[in-house]
Amino acid sequence: MQGRVADSPLLFCGMPMPSMILRKGRDQRLKAGHPWIYAGEVERFRGEFQDGDVIDVKDHRERPLACAHVNRQSQIVGRVLSLQREPVEGAFLRTRIADAIACRKRLGLDPGVGRVVYSEADFLPGLIVDRYGGWLVAQILTLGMDRWRGRIVEALRELFQPEGIYERSDMSVREHEGLPVAKGPLWGEMRDLPEVLLDGLRLRVDVVNGQKTGLFLDQRQNWALAGRYAQGARVLDAFCYTGGFALHAAKGGAASVLGLDISEDAVALARSNAALNDLEGRCTFEAGNAFDRLRGLDSQGERFDLVVLDPPSFTRSKGAVEGAVRGYKEINLRALKILNPGGVLITCSCSYHMSEEAFRAVINEAAQDARRRVRLVEVRTQAPDHPILPAAKETQYLKCLALQVV
Amino acid sequence: MQGRVADSPLLFCGMPMPSMILRKGRDQRLKAGHPWIYAGEVERFRGEFQDGDVIDVKDHRERPLACAHVNRQSQIVGRVLSLQREPVEGAFLRTRIADAIACRKRLGLDPGVGRVVYSEADFLPGLIVDRYGGWLVAQILTLGMDRWRGRIVEALRELFQPEGIYERSDMSVREHEGLPVAKGPLWGEMRDLPEVLLDGLRLRVDVVNGQKTGLFLDQRQNWALAGRYAQGARVLDAFCYTGGFALHAAKGGAASVLGLDISEDAVALARSNAALNDLEGRCTFEAGNAFDRLRGLDSQGERFDLVVLDPPSFTRSKGAVEGAVRGYKEINLRALKILNPGGVLITCSCSYHMSEEAFRAVINEAAQDARRRVRLVEVRTQAPDHPILPAAKETQYLKCLALQVV
Repeated sequence: MQGRVADSPLLFCGMPMPSMILRKGRDQRLKAGHPWIYAGEVERFRGEFQDGDVIDVKDHRERPLACAHVNRQSQIVGRVLSLQREPVEGAFLRTRIADAIACRKRLGLDPGVGRVVYSEADFLPGLIVDRYGGWLVAQILTLGMDRWRGRIVEALRELFQPEGIYERSDMSVREHEGLPVAKGPLWGEMRDLPEVLLDGLRLRVDVVNGQKTGLFLDQRQNWALAGRYAQGARVLDAFCYTGGFALHAAKGGAASVLGLDISEDAVALARSNAALNDLEGRCTFEAGNAFDRLRGLDSQGERFDLVVLDPPSFTRSKGAVEGAVRGYKEINLRALKILNPGGVLITCSCSYHMSEEAFRAVINEAAQDARRRVRLVEVRTQAPDHPILPAAKETQYLKCLALQVV
Repeated sequence: MQGRVADSPLLFCGMPMPSMILRKGRDQRLKAGHPWIYAGEVERFRGEFQDGDVIDVKDHRERPLACAHVNRQSQIVGRVLSLQREPVEGAFLRTRIADAIACRKRLGLDPGVGRVVYSEADFLPGLIVDRYGGWLVAQILTLGMDRWRGRIVEALRELFQPEGIYERSDMSVREHEGLPVAKGPLWGEMRDLPEVLLDGLRLRVDVVNGQKTGLFLDQRQNWALAGRYAQGARVLDAFCYTGGFALHAAKGGAASVLGLDISEDAVALARSNAALNDLEGRCTFEAGNAFDRLRGLDSQGERFDLVVLDPPSFTRSKGAVEGAVRGYKEINLRALKILNPGGVLITCSCSYHMSEEAFRAVINEAAQDARRRVRLVEVRTQAPDHPILPAAKETQYLKCLALQVV
């Protein structure tokens, strides 16, 4: 077959080639710009191919619509690479990554730290790349992209000339694709963890064992809010991880910052990051359970001027939303109770299954139960280098609200 | 009656006094923090009072809930002043305004320019006060507040020591309250229009004949987006008013800015504001119809790197939403067509009746019809000095999206 090489099934769209033919009427979402094809939407497959190949997507009258990575082992059998009849070979991957870079440059985003490739939103489904100064950290999430890993490394080396590329494909979603988890250097040798300069803060990033790729870069613009509200404040960051919100608050002039996290490693790194910025005198980081500590701080009569809640996702499925609602309500209720009048709560949910509307309803209930009147002063979502595809609501997941207690 | 003075019905909440008694079950919204009572929710009124007085609000078992300005001429017969049994007299108004000032200070907002009192969101329903340097501009929207106008002037003079206070109650909503429109100085003498320094831009503000109180202050943080995306860009601001977005773009490094507005006066002020900032060389302002001009620019093959759409409200009622949808779709379709690849559209809707979900759907449709792939990079709402009451969704009305065309 034309252009096929070892790790990369390179085919032309629109040429006579293997294809999936959709059921009647199932082309609408795709035409509107949604990049996924579900197993139940396919009428039949045609031709010879392997999972992970690029094949044509056609409507029920066999008119070509797109080309996509196919994987019959996944509920999402097709991931659209292009709606045009462009060749998905050779320069395709490099061109798409270059486009992603150019888009971020056009928006005036920091070229040194941030998400440089964001999967579907950069029209590269299954590939995420974060940049931490000289190091790139990649997540390869689909079989199709996994088959392209050699090509990915090549394109990233050419476009970024990085010190190294580290893979953090240690994510359970790969199981849905029939892939094992994968972690380790893809290129280069890591002597020390990378250190970045982010909004004037020096941060050492644990790209090897940290959450996601090392930092929650989707919160970057929201971290800055904590700095803005921090002047003279007593601050609590109840799920502080390595200190994104907490250190921004300290740098913003907080009188004191207490950061809590369940992970000893995260707390240790937060502490060392505080020292790196000469902020250790005003920062305390403790390992512990946020639920217990919030209750304890309340019953001890401790009060704060700024509380940040950026918990891990309480639900990864639709079915578990009820439990998540209870969790969000509990922590937000406690946080509102321990705020001084005029104080600010920055509260987040990173769970897609918790809609913004539902999240706001939970916060309202918490405020009513806490008998606090609140005003919403910021309604935020994920950072602009995590763009949203309007046609695919799954690409928007982060909610960040700032509320002032009156 | 105790404490009653000429322009101000001063009464104690909770004392035996006139009251409105709600129907069974109609206290829930109020208890959740919503500040309005509709005519249909009242079982009966009791005692002697005049419209514009402060009276008690009680549940169907006559337990006190709140005190509120009453006006039987309006569909909204009650506007809650307090959920506590606090005396709504003497220092009440001054204290509430001082609280509004303190809240904004705590959030680190510019004390020199911005909304300093925002009606329900500052627990002063019917009173809006904007600050433009030495001048305050007030909107008095309800009968209850209108009866307090002497007291309002007194409190504002004491708290701000302004050069003057100008009233811009020339709003049709006053008719629902049985009030005539009102406009003119409340205190002080205006020799020249005030000039403010806003994010480094000098802006002369037409507080006398401009829209609202002179500037669309609710867009302030969104204006900054235009500056961020403007470097080297050819910019079109299709509803530019006096230049909020356009001048931020010019200051942000735009190669050229074309501003359009239907109002000759607005265009003249935008032009003189450009000159005030030495930006007139890169700015052109023209009076004209945006719909026609957008069509014309498209057919002439003109292309831009940044387009801003901040139109006036296309609908002020639920019933007119369909027409509004057509209007929004038309301008967004045209804007997307004339954007260069990588270009950015900043698109807004200030109509409460156009939900964010509906607005996003319109933009999606426009993108599909324009055959442009877009990514959402910012999802914004009104400025933090226009806070939102989570329990009263009517207090959130502004949608501002930034989309990048790929």
